[in-house]
Amino acid sequence: MKNILLRDESALYYECGYSCDNAVYLRLGEEAWFFTDGRYAVEAREAVRGAEVVIVSDLYGAVAKRLKKSGIKRCAYDPKEWDCYAFGRLDPKGRIRWKAEPDWSHRRRIIKTKEEIEMLARAARAGAKAFDKIAKAFSEEGFGEDERALHFLAERILRKEGKRELSFDPIVAIGPNAAKPHARPTKRKLKKGDLLLLDAGVKYRRYCSDRTRTARAVKGFDFGTVQRFKSRKIQRAYDTVLKAHDRAIAKARSGMEARQVDALAREVIEKAGYGKYFVHSTGHGVGLDIHEMPYISTRSRTRIEDGMVYTVEPGIYLPGEFGIRIEDTVVMQGGRAEVL
Amino acid sequence: MKNILLRDESALYYECGYSCDNAVYLRLGEEAWFFTDGRYAVEAREAVRGAEVVIVSDLYGAVAKRLKKSGIKRCAYDPKEWDCYAFGRLDPKGRIRWKAEPDWSHRRRIIKTKEEIEMLARAARAGAKAFDKIAKAFSEEGFGEDERALHFLAERILRKEGKRELSFDPIVAIGPNAAKPHARPTKRKLKKGDLLLLDAGVKYRRYCSDRTRTARAVKGFDFGTVQRFKSRKIQRAYDTVLKAHDRAIAKARSGMEARQVDALAREVIEKAGYGKYFVHSTGHGVGLDIHEMPYISTRSRTRIEDGMVYTVEPGIYLPGEFGIRIEDTVVMQGGRAEVL
Repeated sequence: MKNILLRDESALYYECGYSCDNAVYLRLGEEAWFFTDGRYAVEAREAVRGAEVVIVSDLYGAVAKRLKKSGIKRCAYDPKEWDCYAFGRLDPKGRIRWKAEPDWSHRRRIIKTKEEIEMLARAARAGAKAFDKIAKAFSEEGFGEDERALHFLAERILRKEGKRELSFDPIVAIGPNAAKPHARPTKRKLKKGDLLLLDAGVKYRRYCSDRTRTARAVKGFDFGTVQRFKSRKIQRAYDTVLKAHDRAIAKARSGMEARQVDALAREVIEKAGYGKYFVHSTGHGVGLDIHEMPYISTRSRTRIEDGMVYTVEPGIYLPGEFGIRIEDTVVMQGGRAEVL
Repeated sequence: MKNILLRDESALYYECGYSCDNAVYLRLGEEAWFFTDGRYAVEAREAVRGAEVVIVSDLYGAVAKRLKKSGIKRCAYDPKEWDCYAFGRLDPKGRIRWKAEPDWSHRRRIIKTKEEIEMLARAARAGAKAFDKIAKAFSEEGFGEDERALHFLAERILRKEGKRELSFDPIVAIGPNAAKPHARPTKRKLKKGDLLLLDAGVKYRRYCSDRTRTARAVKGFDFGTVQRFKSRKIQRAYDTVLKAHDRAIAKARSGMEARQVDALAREVIEKAGYGKYFVHSTGHGVGLDIHEMPYISTRSRTRIEDGMVYTVEPGIYLPGEFGIRIEDTVVMQGGRAEVL
């Protein structure tokens, strides 16, 4: 078994069922250690599986000592997980030949187990339920409120009075603000008939959900995919995005390269003449992290396989006018994509 | 002028009045650049001062090109700001002699300007006001609720319906849970007469506040420092912490070493026999980051000067029984510490 040194919380959690913000996981052959400090001693000892918990005050110093004592010659690490300062403390004399393996843990996590898919499905259900509640709340008390207030209200519902963690800071964007794929909430107020974009996700036992809907906000509106806009221009763009979304999900197959899945959505948008307004990738993997492998981009040659979980989220963004994105998270099963 | 490469958001904000989560600041002699991607183009061009905004798709590749073109031989960087992967892309041929300067920006920010002190004071006032409101809300609707619900309620008040950002995830801990300095909210419910610890802060224009109070939660209680506990053991510990807190603030002087300020509080607690239950430092600097220099610890020989802003937060933690901490943020002015 390969020697590996991990620092990232999701990577640690995947290896031993527990993580905290000041910990290192080290595996050397058949032995493994989970280093952390006294604040986490009780929880770590209860929860860590498959590694010996070591409580220390100087985390990197302790790992350095263990590495020295072991006498190992080679060890892998993910250079994205380590800052230069911490990494520099691990092997000050340069005894070890370090092998940089970017995305080591993400690669390991690319195929989800049955249990993981179940948790991702639960997260997705909780997320979808929150979307329904948010539509109801916005319809009842959202008109006249600005994006900041709506963002806060959405967050409260997503968090369910603090019982749930969020996958990421939700995006609530009205009209032209939706044209910015990563819009931050402004003082723009919601009026009846406005285009409204909501991109949000929640966690279930640390597994993320991710979903986007674009709706016409009128009394009693919902975040279903059937939407009727007054503007023909908006409706045409909306129908194009929905077609791209539906096509990618219907035609994705295990065995394809990720870029082929991207193309399934992108071709629809390009044919409709909006190609240059679809400014991002079609999707990304979802798991313990909100952005994982596989990346569904024009360049990715990752082979799609059963057990992979990723988003399909085509969009059209007309600067200064409006933006549309429709996103679902899917799992590959029996060779096809199923919406979670 | 020294060549410097920065990545941390607070460091970027300090240099040029703007930051975002995908940006690099590079200063070479008299010239400076702010590299970011298209998502932030509009805002960056509006807000960045003293640097040329460069919009790129490959952030590190673009910085690498600029470094190469400049032909510079030496450059400083903070190894804590850079992950090994990103840093490795900046100078693949090893042309530059890199000087690692840990805490470069924190050192630069250790003395606050008058404007910064004003913003820190505003943050402190907003934070204190929220404490009053939280006491009122807990007194009216908190009894019988668990720490998670109280945490969520406190957060809502601190955030003032989403208008304010928090300095950090607040700590709301009841009775024995307060004995964990970094307690996470549990299902423990608040009963009348319980000891209740609240550690929270808000931001004003990115500057942080930080404050802790421990109170006896009865009908109409407040988070003032005058508290009456039924248990003589708790009262004795409380009075000791308050005395330590007051003494450190009253006797801190510019010109002292930080460890001498730490000792002002620690001596009171040690004399009362609780020395081993005061498990952390007396305080830390506060500014754009919630933890900055100077560190008020037993080992820090940093010389305290006018314009420094730091917390005074002694505590006594009796595992399984209770914990007490009283914290204020102070600024050194005219040689003395004033509570913000």
